[in-house]
Amino acid sequence: MKKAASLRDAGPFQSVSVTDLADNLRQGKVTSGELTERALNAAREFGPRINCFVTLDEKGARRAAEQADAELSSGCDRGPLHGVPVGVKDIISTAGLMTGMGSKHFAGHVPNTDAAVVTSLRSAGAVIIGKTHAHEFAYGPTGDIAVTGPALNPNDISRVTGGSSSGSAAAVAAGLLPIAIGTDTAGSVRIPASLCGVVGMRPTSGTVSPAGVFPLSRTLDVIGPMAGSVTDTALLWRAMVSRPDHTGVTGPWLPLRVPNSPTQSPLLRVGEVKCALTERVSYHQIEALQIAVSALVDSGAVTVEVPIPEVDECGRVHQAIQSAEAYALHQDRVESAPDLFDPEILRQLRAASEVSGWEYVLAMQTRDRLREQVLAKLSSIDLLVMPTVPIEAPLIGQRELQGENGWTSTREALKSMTVPWSLLDLPAINVPVVVNGAHMPCGVQLVGKPGCERQLLAAAAALELRLETG
Amino acid sequence: MKKAASLRDAGPFQSVSVTDLADNLRQGKVTSGELTERALNAAREFGPRINCFVTLDEKGARRAAEQADAELSSGCDRGPLHGVPVGVKDIISTAGLMTGMGSKHFAGHVPNTDAAVVTSLRSAGAVIIGKTHAHEFAYGPTGDIAVTGPALNPNDISRVTGGSSSGSAAAVAAGLLPIAIGTDTAGSVRIPASLCGVVGMRPTSGTVSPAGVFPLSRTLDVIGPMAGSVTDTALLWRAMVSRPDHTGVTGPWLPLRVPNSPTQSPLLRVGEVKCALTERVSYHQIEALQIAVSALVDSGAVTVEVPIPEVDECGRVHQAIQSAEAYALHQDRVESAPDLFDPEILRQLRAASEVSGWEYVLAMQTRDRLREQVLAKLSSIDLLVMPTVPIEAPLIGQRELQGENGWTSTREALKSMTVPWSLLDLPAINVPVVVNGAHMPCGVQLVGKPGCERQLLAAAAALELRLETG
Repeated sequence: MKKAASLRDAGPFQSVSVTDLADNLRQGKVTSGELTERALNAAREFGPRINCFVTLDEKGARRAAEQADAELSSGCDRGPLHGVPVGVKDIISTAGLMTGMGSKHFAGHVPNTDAAVVTSLRSAGAVIIGKTHAHEFAYGPTGDIAVTGPALNPNDISRVTGGSSSGSAAAVAAGLLPIAIGTDTAGSVRIPASLCGVVGMRPTSGTVSPAGVFPLSRTLDVIGPMAGSVTDTALLWRAMVSRPDHTGVTGPWLPLRVPNSPTQSPLLRVGEVKCALTERVSYHQIEALQIAVSALVDSGAVTVEVPIPEVDECGRVHQAIQSAEAYALHQDRVESAPDLFDPEILRQLRAASEVSGWEYVLAMQTRDRLREQVLAKLSSIDLLVMPTVPIEAPLIGQRELQGENGWTSTREALKSMTVPWSLLDLPAINVPVVVNGAHMPCGVQLVGKPGCERQLLAAAAALELRLETG
Repeated sequence: MKKAASLRDAGPFQSVSVTDLADNLRQGKVTSGELTERALNAAREFGPRINCFVTLDEKGARRAAEQADAELSSGCDRGPLHGVPVGVKDIISTAGLMTGMGSKHFAGHVPNTDAAVVTSLRSAGAVIIGKTHAHEFAYGPTGDIAVTGPALNPNDISRVTGGSSSGSAAAVAAGLLPIAIGTDTAGSVRIPASLCGVVGMRPTSGTVSPAGVFPLSRTLDVIGPMAGSVTDTALLWRAMVSRPDHTGVTGPWLPLRVPNSPTQSPLLRVGEVKCALTERVSYHQIEALQIAVSALVDSGAVTVEVPIPEVDECGRVHQAIQSAEAYALHQDRVESAPDLFDPEILRQLRAASEVSGWEYVLAMQTRDRLREQVLAKLSSIDLLVMPTVPIEAPLIGQRELQGENGWTSTREALKSMTVPWSLLDLPAINVPVVVNGAHMPCGVQLVGKPGCERQLLAAAAALELRLETG
């Protein structure tokens, strides 16, 4: 059997950190213009082979790079993302640049204004290379449904990237971009990050403005950073949450490095989540978890098993909330132009319309109760660890599983481990873990306390370093 | 035709203000013990004839009165409600005293703790005489459905009190109590106040803790004061919102009088609401409105007509929210013991279960939009005036109207003018207006800005004074 084609590491940004790029830019070893051309060349050459870009903004990117180079050489320094290429998921509005939501409904749609997070990125000096593939209306965890066709996993192009931030994950995994942003309602940053083998974080809601991002569920949607390493994810995250300063330019706005990036996690109390769900995990993902837990212990953390049966209740509750809110957003389109939806998306929406009002109300109340119960269990624990997804990346279009670990629905399996933290609104990050013999990437999910993204990123960075150095 | 029996003014508290009672108590002209006996005697004599009390707390009331007298004579003064009898709607928990929700489901139910608002009343020294009739689960605007039978309007016992705070309105209208508290989700304080001819205010949500009050719709429920006059309503309101002080007793906690109670409303800008709904009002209620507007102008206010078509949209939106939330609260009971509901309440709940999740989500969003639009129209207006109800009190059990002003449903007509302010969360108060030739009481509704209860009460007091002095 022939080895499936891999485009992993095809691009120029693999194994180059944002901090390295920032240093090189400031030492004159490279210009933003050159980085931008590398990114555009790679996007043109390899992008179509994994279908990770929807639109490239060659003109806009070159103009932004020119400005970045001019600013940097004149001493105006916007921080670590200044002059660095970035990708933006295609449900996030970009002024003058097509934003298609992965759907026929928005064919040729060009917004007049940038989303708030895009404004933040531009203020940090980042160069937007283009818009990345999104599962249609961000309504699916596979990444293989969109008006532009399926995104393909750079590790094996017969397999899905995961979704819905499919293109952002694939572009970073292939090294076509150093960083990209996605959105996460049920796991849409973490699932493709895990399946493609990159880092992706779902922050606590309210930390990044949702203005200008096409919603799926206003209660559950968040915007998250994706990158090749935890440190790069942290740098991107800091730019996303920093408030753009329109009063004038003084530099640097953001430090070039993550301060005090830890190499140890002394006395960090890590809880290993135990519930019915965590029993339903494939062999390689169990191994990834064990490797990660060992690495955490080696880095000085204390681990303890934490039974959280509440996690098993989250799926049903999340489904009720997401369904009612998603149908409320799409009801007009379903009624006026159902044929413009992909048939699978239309089926999902029609099922979503069946949730009754009282079920939604009870789900919102149950969410509050579960959140309170779970937070109470975290009183003496700093973060949780569990798998990000229980299965390896399925094939393009594959919707059924053979009952391995009780899973029959691909979609259900993919979302199962990420939805709890979306529902409970805790920050969570996928960290890739190399497992010998695994055909596809594996990863673990670290879960922090609400608003504690810094602590979560620091622990993830220590884990990553320990995994690399062994 | 024989004049229908009237118990209006039957009791001892008609034409006696709380301020008079407070003065008399402090001058030794009367004791709280004596006031309490008067209230208990009147409740026993006249209460059953209008069915306004569910439970009398003779022991508890006498004990509270004894304590009030002892405190007052020892110089501990809790303010204007100290020693004054009060009634509490039977969906509001009272420790050790039956709280039946008007329903067979809660037959014999005795809570262990007081609702927060009851704690506030006790801390203000008020003497709780008993629990007042509530429409079953507060789920109806008529007041004629409860396990204890219909409440009867003291102005004409063949007619409904309005609901759901039916007993509180009736007891105050009959002079059996000087003050009472109710709850309001769609108009349940204002409708019975209007139909019985007393004052009742729906405050902005969040001003009185809902703890210990049986909910109907968590988004729309508020607790409100009811009294024979605006001034007494204001004094009761102040006691309801004051935080109980458990650190010790110093007095007086609350001033005996409403400070600077205005007799004029110079430069008050009053908007007369114009929309499709305000065209559907009976002759007597139109006259009441005209009398009130004239009185406001005479007291120095400036009036202007304000078209607010948004008001016409509110009913449908309110219905969706209340329905989904009400069914979420009662779903268990509907499934496990449907027969314990009155058939009309059960029909309402079954209809409420039909609201879909996406409709609820859209309704919540529409509410935000309507509120924003209406608040924008109030930028240069201090308060609004419109009818409280468009019809006179219907007969007990009457559910259909003959199409007068387009109304065919009694319930729909009764709620129509009060639901907009519940949905938009603006404070609103019913002020009785005497209309010559009207068989039943009439009233107008003043609507204030969010959180501006003091301004609303002051304007209502000026209106009331002008209406009395002519």
